[in-house]
Amino acid sequence: MNKVKIGVIGSGFQADIHCASCRILAEEGEVVAVASPTPGRARALADRHGISGAHRDYREMLAEPDIEMVTIAAPNHLHAEMVRHAAEAGKHVICEKPLCLTLDEADQMIDICRTKGVLLLYGEELLFTPKYLKAKTMADEGAFGRIHLITQCERHPGPHAAWFRDLRRAGGGVFMDMGCHGIAFCYWFLGRSPIATVYCQMNAQEPEGEDALEDNSLCILEFENGAVGLVENSWTRVGGMDDRIEVYGSRGLTLGDLHMGNALPTYSETGYGYAGEKAPGTKGWSYPVYDELYNYGLPQELAHFARCVRGKEQPITTGEDGRAVLEVLLAGYASAGEGRKVALPFRPKNVRHPAELWLAGRLKGEDAGL
Amino acid sequence: MNKVKIGVIGSGFQADIHCASCRILAEEGEVVAVASPTPGRARALADRHGISGAHRDYREMLAEPDIEMVTIAAPNHLHAEMVRHAAEAGKHVICEKPLCLTLDEADQMIDICRTKGVLLLYGEELLFTPKYLKAKTMADEGAFGRIHLITQCERHPGPHAAWFRDLRRAGGGVFMDMGCHGIAFCYWFLGRSPIATVYCQMNAQEPEGEDALEDNSLCILEFENGAVGLVENSWTRVGGMDDRIEVYGSRGLTLGDLHMGNALPTYSETGYGYAGEKAPGTKGWSYPVYDELYNYGLPQELAHFARCVRGKEQPITTGEDGRAVLEVLLAGYASAGEGRKVALPFRPKNVRHPAELWLAGRLKGEDAGL
Amino acid sequence: MNKVKIGVIGSGFQADIHCASCRILAEEGEVVAVASPTPGRARALADRHGISGAHRDYREMLAEPDIEMVTIAAPNHLHAEMVRHAAEAGKHVICEKPLCLTLDEADQMIDICRTKGVLLLYGEELLFTPKYLKAKTMADEGAFGRIHLITQCERHPGPHAAWFRDLRRAGGGVFMDMGCHGIAFCYWFLGRSPIATVYCQMNAQEPEGEDALEDNSLCILEFENGAVGLVENSWTRVGGMDDRIEVYGSRGLTLGDLHMGNALPTYSETGYGYAGEKAPGTKGWSYPVYDELYNYGLPQELAHFARCVRGKEQPITTGEDGRAVLEVLLAGYASAGEGRKVALPFRPKNVRHPAELWLAGRLKGEDAGL
Amino acid sequence: MNKVKIGVIGSGFQADIHCASCRILAEEGEVVAVASPTPGRARALADRHGISGAHRDYREMLAEPDIEMVTIAAPNHLHAEMVRHAAEAGKHVICEKPLCLTLDEADQMIDICRTKGVLLLYGEELLFTPKYLKAKTMADEGAFGRIHLITQCERHPGPHAAWFRDLRRAGGGVFMDMGCHGIAFCYWFLGRSPIATVYCQMNAQEPEGEDALEDNSLCILEFENGAVGLVENSWTRVGGMDDRIEVYGSRGLTLGDLHMGNALPTYSETGYGYAGEKAPGTKGWSYPVYDELYNYGLPQELAHFARCVRGKEQPITTGEDGRAVLEVLLAGYASAGEGRKVALPFRPKNVRHPAELWLAGRLKGEDAGL
Repeated sequence: MNKVKIGVIGSGFQADIHCASCRILAEEGEVVAVASPTPGRARALADRHGISGAHRDYREMLAEPDIEMVTIAAPNHLHAEMVRHAAEAGKHVICEKPLCLTLDEADQMIDICRTKGVLLLYGEELLFTPKYLKAKTMADEGAFGRIHLITQCERHPGPHAAWFRDLRRAGGGVFMDMGCHGIAFCYWFLGRSPIATVYCQMNAQEPEGEDALEDNSLCILEFENGAVGLVENSWTRVGGMDDRIEVYGSRGLTLGDLHMGNALPTYSETGYGYAGEKAPGTKGWSYPVYDELYNYGLPQELAHFARCVRGKEQPITTGEDGRAVLEVLLAGYASAGEGRKVALPFRPKNVRHPAELWLAGRLKGEDAGL
Repeated sequence: MNKVKIGVIGSGFQADIHCASCRILAEEGEVVAVASPTPGRARALADRHGISGAHRDYREMLAEPDIEMVTIAAPNHLHAEMVRHAAEAGKHVICEKPLCLTLDEADQMIDICRTKGVLLLYGEELLFTPKYLKAKTMADEGAFGRIHLITQCERHPGPHAAWFRDLRRAGGGVFMDMGCHGIAFCYWFLGRSPIATVYCQMNAQEPEGEDALEDNSLCILEFENGAVGLVENSWTRVGGMDDRIEVYGSRGLTLGDLHMGNALPTYSETGYGYAGEKAPGTKGWSYPVYDELYNYGLPQELAHFARCVRGKEQPITTGEDGRAVLEVLLAGYASAGEGRKVALPFRPKNVRHPAELWLAGRLKGEDAGL
Repeated sequence: MNKVKIGVIGSGFQADIHCASCRILAEEGEVVAVASPTPGRARALADRHGISGAHRDYREMLAEPDIEMVTIAAPNHLHAEMVRHAAEAGKHVICEKPLCLTLDEADQMIDICRTKGVLLLYGEELLFTPKYLKAKTMADEGAFGRIHLITQCERHPGPHAAWFRDLRRAGGGVFMDMGCHGIAFCYWFLGRSPIATVYCQMNAQEPEGEDALEDNSLCILEFENGAVGLVENSWTRVGGMDDRIEVYGSRGLTLGDLHMGNALPTYSETGYGYAGEKAPGTKGWSYPVYDELYNYGLPQELAHFARCVRGKEQPITTGEDGRAVLEVLLAGYASAGEGRKVALPFRPKNVRHPAELWLAGRLKGEDAGL
Repeated sequence: MNKVKIGVIGSGFQADIHCASCRILAEEGEVVAVASPTPGRARALADRHGISGAHRDYREMLAEPDIEMVTIAAPNHLHAEMVRHAAEAGKHVICEKPLCLTLDEADQMIDICRTKGVLLLYGEELLFTPKYLKAKTMADEGAFGRIHLITQCERHPGPHAAWFRDLRRAGGGVFMDMGCHGIAFCYWFLGRSPIATVYCQMNAQEPEGEDALEDNSLCILEFENGAVGLVENSWTRVGGMDDRIEVYGSRGLTLGDLHMGNALPTYSETGYGYAGEKAPGTKGWSYPVYDELYNYGLPQELAHFARCVRGKEQPITTGEDGRAVLEVLLAGYASAGEGRKVALPFRPKNVRHPAELWLAGRLKGEDAGL
């Protein structure tokens, strides 16, 4: 059977990863076109990966009949419209995290894809990270008994592009950007047990301007099954990436560390080529990782999605998951704004950008002397 | 100059540690007597450590003129009265953590010791833990820039004695027992920056009875200087002790691990003598630690206190610290009960046992469907 | 282009790995048949992996016209003849390590494959191990300056099958079985710098019978470029697998650990499915690895060999490498027998099984009172 | 009872450590004087540690009647004469490793101390290193069954003073300087089982001049009880200190790491005060250790020796141990020179400096084309 032909919307860091990941496990799918409005960017990305098609307008790319699936690696505020266009063009869609900015958008995205008979696939790679999959497998085998606590932390020195720090395009700061990973991870790890409450603490430790979004957050999830999730994120962690999980249960525990826990501790006076995403340098002591995309699970994710298009597998991460995560993100911002835990379900009205719920509260909190 | 003569009140796990710690760094002080109401226990402890004096009634021991300092290793609800008796007898006092159950008690303890001219020393060993001291030294040298976040976690499979799980004697569960360590640590690490707010999440994952105290807690401290503290505790962590810190700042970070991070990874089919406090066993893979009390800092703490009695050093942890920690514990229980963060200063009225503030809320929360 | 069709000779542990590895990176090659003389074994292996062909006689399998390449996962003493038969049948050959038992055999294998125009590929997976490849990449980028010392150790509790302990079938013990890995690794890592001398120390720590082969060995290689290699092997290491490298140079160093250094430290009272090859169990503390074959590099090795067959890549490990390693193995056994270092080139006469060179010396040494 | 009054001969790195160590565990002994021929050095060292006495001539110091014990922290070639003078003055002696340069010297040192009734104490701190002591304790408890292999490695970027690289003063290079540690460690760990053979490989990877001493060595010890020791040393290891042990036995194993295995992994853009002996810097990633002298065991060693002087304990490391180590060092150099293993007992004639045995062989080896 032919490989699934894929179009990539975007030309930045994440779009490059989609192209690269597709080449690592190449049996199921291949990227045949990329689209980016910035002149020259699509062509450059396509050339870097030996891809023939390059478009300025992604809608032009959606018109290509042989393309069966598109991936969306664009700023968050564009996800909803792009998914709609893709669905209308009859393409299956992989939408990068977070799914979108509002629950209304999320509902519409899920609805249109269902109506048009295309898959809405949610790009949460932690569900494919091999080390974390091993933890999940052990948990499902009963290794840890009943789960009491799961922690997932992701910290690094800050995002790749300016739009991540822009409320209107990103919808929020580090909690929106990376909190979504930890929320999805805990939710999936616990078999999608409903989440009862959300508490979130956040602040801007290194604010760039008055209206700075949060660059550090701590989020506590109480699940209906009694387990607790702790999601820790930072954009101000110097020294490179950190991505770890801890799972504690009544009968056992496991500790997973994607970076220092997989790396080759290395000392070099001269430096060398590449240590890893956001690594601070290669001189002195460093922690180079290997097969980085594979160890994140990105090629596996794309291969899974391609197999879903072919009907060989059922999607393990969908628009519904993205929506569930978004609801927690909204509740988290509201919680941080109000200084109290928020019960789910939670559907705030008239909120266009999730972090508004916190920014509003921050002002109020200042008035209250908190 | 003669060694400071010390009397130990208590005969359990912690009293034994006091006696053992005193022998490790023996230059400054020596335990000359122990007191315990349980028949035979004081004598047994004294014999184990080559101590001459053994008393059934600690007040009898307080009457010994050559004793200059006593340590209190008794259940929490007895601390206040014992400190008062010691002060009235003109003895310096080392009071184990947590200081006591109420702020009224704390104020009285501080007051009586000041009035009687004796030192009220607060037994928080994390301020003497060599690995953590190194982290503090680096922080004070500017290694991390401005601190954004400190985490301190202590987890183990549950306490040594039954009274830890009794509201009336302990005042609370794991948060009272070990949360006090992390709170003191963050507070001290940040140079006693005032704490602005406290949020705490807790539950009983493995409840022993209907009125079970919390056995897991997560506590978030917001300091006035902008830093955040995260204190993580558990009594249901199987696999042995875990005691770790993480310090993140604008210019650096450090990671300290007292157990797996100091141990000799060991595999044994036969087993061996001792791996460490609360270790699950010595067969198979284990993480034996060495010089355990030294690496906790307990001998150093006692030697420091003895030097304080001799006027050679100023106490670095006092009743005032214990009181500050207690205020946060109270706020934490109130926070957990109410599901919101609590601003300091906080002085609840008519609360005899801190965890009541949570237990009350737990009931209310159930009513509210949280 | 069609996938390379592969036949597997053997039905044991290694043959199973060949089949499984081929499925992990499935784009380039596929196993279509297996052959094993033991009744039922080939069929069982084939069924486990969804392979159609199963043969009792590998020569029957070699007669299949669509098979382009065979892998040899049989006892060492059969390698030479099997390679000859495969070459005569016009099949490319992957020969598992060690290449064979004598240099005469090695020369004949290389010769016949050249004459028949088929590839003789040497199954040394350490050249494909992703973590070790990263170390090599850094070295080639100059990260470590001039290399002073490379160590490679592989230790585990003993081999999978009885023939490994049989001089006539295996040719030697742990040094033959696993020393070949470390020798190949150092040789490749240093750009195939000629080896000047070999010293080897070995003994049977847990001998099974009077004529026990060595179960522990330490081998020191002096390279002509001045670097030193240290190869450490054991069949008596309890507690599971250990596979590590250390690279020390004038300007840097790196440390690679395939097992504990990649694993999730895990504690379980109940146990779980699988921790890793030769792991002692899954209860208590364990070090489960993930994507084990991938992290060894076996799927990558097979995919590379398939691409070599298609002319897309040049083989990076060939019969010549296997021969070079065998020469060192022979020198190592002679060295252990004589208690002195042996200079290369070394071509002992009338030695049918490498370990004879040591066993002879062992007797002599006993006479000499060493 | 009074503290043992100690005089220190030397004013360099090791003498400073003696003074500092004595202050850490101060109950048993105190340094009251130091002696160094270099003008001003003794006074400076004494002032740094609050010591009253400072002498230019150590024999002057030996005349002080209240001094009961001296420590020798001088170049190796002076040890024998200094011990003799100390013994004649009736002082107990702590002699730093290695004991001396020849077996004749060793025999005379042991003899004169016995004759004069003073203790000859051998300064091997690995016998007091707390982490390694734990390994020994577990071994003695049977944790590992019968020991198969012990490895001890010590690597760093090179010595503190010029005399370490001078054949006449040091007697040899890194094998003399640090090989003595590993030899003593294995010997002690195995209960002083006799050593049957020694093989040593060494070279000068970064020679400073034509007559450079070895800066890298690998030494294999075969013990009569069947165990094997592997001692790995380097003066060209960049990136700081490395001191590790591995113990493998029939029933278990343990791994001890004094530096990375005890440190706080730390990242700092600014740097901080001190990371550890020979650490390459404090910016970027570093591995700061804490309580460094304590974790080496040096204060414990001095306290033990002081207790020996008081008759409270029996010396656990004496001139006889130093002599046994020296014999292995001599055999090791001979082995490296001849390229073969050397059986003990071994007493070379007319060798004034141990490394001559290797240097001679190196020339011969070059002749022989090795």
